Amino acid sequence: MDLFCPLPKSNYPHVLLAHGGGGTLMHQLLKRVFLPAFANDALRQNHDSAVLDLNGTRVAFTTDSYVVRPLFFPGGDIGALAVNGTVNDLAMSGARPLALSAGFILEEGLAMETLERVVGSMQSAAEAVGVPIVTGDTKVVDKGKGDGIFINTAGIGVIEHSLHINPRQIQAGDHILVNGDLGRHGIAILAVREGLEFETTIASDCAPLADCVLQLIAAGIEVHCLRDLTRGGLASALNEIAETAGLSMALNENSIPVREDVRGACELMGFDPLYVANEGRFAAFVPAAQADHALEILSAHPLGQGAALIGQVTPKAVAPVLLQSRIGATRIVDMLSGEQLPRIC
Amino acid sequence: MDLFCPLPKSNYPHVLLAHGGGGTLMHQLLKRVFLPAFANDALRQNHDSAVLDLNGTRVAFTTDSYVVRPLFFPGGDIGALAVNGTVNDLAMSGARPLALSAGFILEEGLAMETLERVVGSMQSAAEAVGVPIVTGDTKVVDKGKGDGIFINTAGIGVIEHSLHINPRQIQAGDHILVNGDLGRHGIAILAVREGLEFETTIASDCAPLADCVLQLIAAGIEVHCLRDLTRGGLASALNEIAETAGLSMALNENSIPVREDVRGACELMGFDPLYVANEGRFAAFVPAAQADHALEILSAHPLGQGAALIGQVTPKAVAPVLLQSRIGATRIVDMLSGEQLPRIC
Repeated sequence: MDLFCPLPKSNYPHVLLAHGGGGTLMHQLLKRVFLPAFANDALRQNHDSAVLDLNGTRVAFTTDSYVVRPLFFPGGDIGALAVNGTVNDLAMSGARPLALSAGFILEEGLAMETLERVVGSMQSAAEAVGVPIVTGDTKVVDKGKGDGIFINTAGIGVIEHSLHINPRQIQAGDHILVNGDLGRHGIAILAVREGLEFETTIASDCAPLADCVLQLIAAGIEVHCLRDLTRGGLASALNEIAETAGLSMALNENSIPVREDVRGACELMGFDPLYVANEGRFAAFVPAAQADHALEILSAHPLGQGAALIGQVTPKAVAPVLLQSRIGATRIVDMLSGEQLPRIC
Repeated sequence: MDLFCPLPKSNYPHVLLAHGGGGTLMHQLLKRVFLPAFANDALRQNHDSAVLDLNGTRVAFTTDSYVVRPLFFPGGDIGALAVNGTVNDLAMSGARPLALSAGFILEEGLAMETLERVVGSMQSAAEAVGVPIVTGDTKVVDKGKGDGIFINTAGIGVIEHSLHINPRQIQAGDHILVNGDLGRHGIAILAVREGLEFETTIASDCAPLADCVLQLIAAGIEVHCLRDLTRGGLASALNEIAETAGLSMALNENSIPVREDVRGACELMGFDPLYVANEGRFAAFVPAAQADHALEILSAHPLGQGAALIGQVTPKAVAPVLLQSRIGATRIVDMLSGEQLPRIC
């Protein structure tokens, strides 16, 4: 992939797979169709959750649909993903998740056993984070008009601290942490989809991040922004935040944790791990003075074992995100162009 | 349709269209798959919204997916439906709608113009009820794995009174009101789908019911239960409530408002208007002593012009819902069996 050659900025007359890929085209769709229509302050926060005031309580509200293919993969399935993904979106506002909704769009002919397995997995994931699924809906579409199971979950959470965690809070000098190695979810999906076999099974990192985040906040870390690194990977997430904040970021490739087997699989298939989707990984932006403490807290958490300091926020530079590569050169890390792996979540 | 011949109660190994139809099979799916897995008190309320306590504020939370076919129909489209439907689910708990989420599942190849038209319609509907769409998500699935546009909306609302509006609150003697004539949404969809032409265009009743409901409550009507009459129509909604409450209902066919053109279309096509879906109609259960006052308030509202008192709650009888027909005979009104009109909402 040539990062210096973005797709033409022209408007497309039809929806492409890449409009759902978390990269440039998805952001064009947001900016051209959704944001102008649904103009309101909450949506313009440009964050994973909207934050609303409810009689003095700050409430986070978010939604995601899940269309991952195949439904089951090493390390997870669409049910676990639908719970953890929405829990994570709430966590990225620093909210304690309170309740989830579940909307199912089933394709006529789906095996009831498959549905039961997915629903069971959702409940296990929901129990593991202590967040009940309190309301739901089921629709069925004709055979050939769906693809087994699509799930939408929405979530509400409560913000129980005084921080305002969103992209506009980051400052030049902030340190950027991630909670572990990158790229496993995308490679796990790809491997099972394409029937690839590696020496070891690469399992998705799919996991709920709320506890990990709430521990950072409870320890007094003045978290400025959080973002889970799903569609479009680390590269797209950081570009989006940098653009919203009007700042840049300088990353150090040597510090970005990628497992050897994942790196090997990426090289084999021509992927860049910075663009591969994760489902249990997030970036945290914290004041430089608190970075070591934050890293300690993350590393002590079961979901932060491979946590690392990967770079810093800088004043606006030639591009939103710059990477000092392993050989010492500096390159621009652009937002994902086109579609790397459709239907990854 | 033979109402006295329910489908066999056996389990189906595959999902059928009727599992999304709002009738017997959908309730079997709920009871057999979803409720046992997601066991929690909020879900067991068996109502359109879950009601949660949030630092002393009662919050209603609900979700619905919309897969209506075709996307545009007389009186509405999937966008207006997705806003009004979820606003109505909140209203049925007596909540003031506060915010909506919107999750889109788009099929590759969808005309961008169609998406823009639907999104514009959602925004118009959202503005009309004063409820912003504050958070969203877009996924794209391969051509042939979706059907143009599926939309999920979730909604949160605030309950600003002390009533507990749900099926378990109804009492023998309660009067049952509806806010207008039944069956227009289903017949409007069917007509455009099948290319049928009637003397007059039958337009969907698609409309937001929150204001109408809040006026009832503001006037001091002690509303016991509310239910919008969507998939499965009046018959399925009343059966569900009667079963949850352990009571029965006696309806008077003469009082149930159905427009002549809708009745004619139903007769022509072998439908019973009691089972046809509405998207701007609800049943209200109120104490007998307040029924006249409630009917007055409804009738004065633009969305209650054809309001009527259609029956009463009785102690448990031979069946959940009994109807005194126009010729004076009494018949059982069962829950919808099978599927009358798939993908009606």
